[in-house]
Amino acid sequence: MVGGGQLARMTQQAAIALGVPLRVLSDSAHASAARVCSDVRIGEHTSLADLRGFAAGCAVVTFDHEHVPGPHIRALESAGVACRPGSAALLHAQDKLVMRERLTALGVPCPRFAPVREQADVAAFAERGGWPIVLKAVRGGYDGKGVWVCASAAEAREVMTRAAAAGVPLLAEAHVEFRRELAALVARSPHGQGAAYAIVETVQRDGICREVIAPAPGLPEEVAAHAQRLALEIAGALDVVGLLAVELFETGDGVSVNELAMRPHNSGHWTIDGARTSQFEQHLRAVLDLPLGSPAPTARYAVMANVLGGAAADLYPRYTHVMARDPAIKVHLYGKDVRPGRKIGHVTALGDDLDDVRERARHAADYLRGPQ
Amino acid sequence: MVGGGQLARMTQQAAIALGVPLRVLSDSAHASAARVCSDVRIGEHTSLADLRGFAAGCAVVTFDHEHVPGPHIRALESAGVACRPGSAALLHAQDKLVMRERLTALGVPCPRFAPVREQADVAAFAERGGWPIVLKAVRGGYDGKGVWVCASAAEAREVMTRAAAAGVPLLAEAHVEFRRELAALVARSPHGQGAAYAIVETVQRDGICREVIAPAPGLPEEVAAHAQRLALEIAGALDVVGLLAVELFETGDGVSVNELAMRPHNSGHWTIDGARTSQFEQHLRAVLDLPLGSPAPTARYAVMANVLGGAAADLYPRYTHVMARDPAIKVHLYGKDVRPGRKIGHVTALGDDLDDVRERARHAADYLRGPQ
Repeated sequence: MVGGGQLARMTQQAAIALGVPLRVLSDSAHASAARVCSDVRIGEHTSLADLRGFAAGCAVVTFDHEHVPGPHIRALESAGVACRPGSAALLHAQDKLVMRERLTALGVPCPRFAPVREQADVAAFAERGGWPIVLKAVRGGYDGKGVWVCASAAEAREVMTRAAAAGVPLLAEAHVEFRRELAALVARSPHGQGAAYAIVETVQRDGICREVIAPAPGLPEEVAAHAQRLALEIAGALDVVGLLAVELFETGDGVSVNELAMRPHNSGHWTIDGARTSQFEQHLRAVLDLPLGSPAPTARYAVMANVLGGAAADLYPRYTHVMARDPAIKVHLYGKDVRPGRKIGHVTALGDDLDDVRERARHAADYLRGPQ
Repeated sequence: MVGGGQLARMTQQAAIALGVPLRVLSDSAHASAARVCSDVRIGEHTSLADLRGFAAGCAVVTFDHEHVPGPHIRALESAGVACRPGSAALLHAQDKLVMRERLTALGVPCPRFAPVREQADVAAFAERGGWPIVLKAVRGGYDGKGVWVCASAAEAREVMTRAAAAGVPLLAEAHVEFRRELAALVARSPHGQGAAYAIVETVQRDGICREVIAPAPGLPEEVAAHAQRLALEIAGALDVVGLLAVELFETGDGVSVNELAMRPHNSGHWTIDGARTSQFEQHLRAVLDLPLGSPAPTARYAVMANVLGGAAADLYPRYTHVMARDPAIKVHLYGKDVRPGRKIGHVTALGDDLDDVRERARHAADYLRGPQ
């Protein structure tokens, strides 16, 4: 797995059970996954030489993020390395314009979009739907961000100027008036087997996923089934191998696709404790062309809350408090130094009473964060 | 954790979630746990120098087996190393005579026993209860065994002769006519918190645990509660820190204690998939004096079956078959080379219908073993 973050770290837990030796390419020996794996290669995912050295001897190469340059993946593929997902599929998680164009061609509901090169393009786009609009980096971003909601032409101009300076091409999208955000998570194996997890509700704050509720409460069964089918169809059409996470907007008339990711996803962390097969095990099974595992839930409700870093670097007193207060809460820490606002772990609560389960997960996550 | 076996390997999965850095002392870089941990020290658990080097910088030292010599553990303790369980408690899992004498003094029901030094001691012991009797190595054993059921004086004489040659002291025990074997698994933390898992039935064949059923079917609630209390009382009386597994015989009038282990135990592997807190997480929480986790089951029945090595070294075709046949079966492989009869993994099935759950677990374990 290319990348030493928490997704690779949690993949290691699944690899241990499956008896699959996991090698990680990490830019640091202190990265989240590098701390817990025996086979760590230190290198840069932007270096083809590092990638080649890493891939030598691997049965399959997969990814814990989307940042490996497409030409590098294609070079590995040309050299006979099994990259899963492959470069052609992964492009749709790397390039938002390619993704929008392809999904639209497939008839998948998406927000209205247009590439924007100049201020005039933005003005023309806003003229059709009004403000606010959303500007997105087609690839990458700047200042650690890739999405900007712009309420006016002045705001859009500032984003355009800074993006141009950073050499980042932009895309305009209609600002969707959604009821809530949902996510579909499916797996697909090379020979075409598919599996779909329950559709979840994701709650974002300040652009960061804070809470995931599985299954999305009150979602009509036909909407859930439609969203699962949609994700499986996208996975098939794009020839995705491994996991595909589809971030969705629930609108007045169904769902529309926001983003795609082809890897274990924050919206699927609940599956470690709340599904028969965790998303990390499922991703490994899929990329290794093993039979997929049951995505069935193990409890009526699972709520996952991300733990962000707070002001205090020492988690310990809050960690013991949370465990003592709720012996059934599942705490997952990522082995990262605490920095304010950084995702350093997550907690999952399970149970029959949604209000209670949400309260437990929120309390544990908030308490672990502590004063900000 | 001293020892690089599968118990340390599965402890690593729990350590990853808890954010606890796990260091392993292993006699080989290819041992089960050494393959999946980043911080592996190669050394011998019988070498005090290796143990001292390993322990330097560890907050707590714990064990994946009982084979570290007591004097070595006491030397670590004298040097200020927190060993959990401590040498005084662990002695009861290392020396069967000490264990029997102590449990008897505590009023815990045990089979009748006596140390046997000469053939005359055996004859005197058998005279009281008749044949068969059980001879056990007080510590260690020979030919990889430590327990011999002897049907006659001639059989006992052969065991005595070989044990004497190996320098292994023996103990005689009454052969208990049990209904079935049970196991109690509890955890105790340094400040005295306790937690008890459901009492399980263990099914042995040829002296090897083959199947564990959680909870033990048809066990009267008062017997189960009594067995849990008994295990918690033993843990308290012996000042155990960490897990205590108590192997029990169910007899006509309750339970009697067979063996003790102070570590994660084969009879508790079902908890990885079948309890809110796995025994491996619980052991870490206990030895680190963290609040203990909920031992509540996550399904009505969990059945764990050990996977033994068969004739074919290549597991792969059977592995994929088992996963395809039962997408909900949980396969755990230990990263060990296949050798006939060796424990190389386990499988766990969960569900409401005990017959179905047993059949699924048995089938998966038998199929993975393949031709013998």
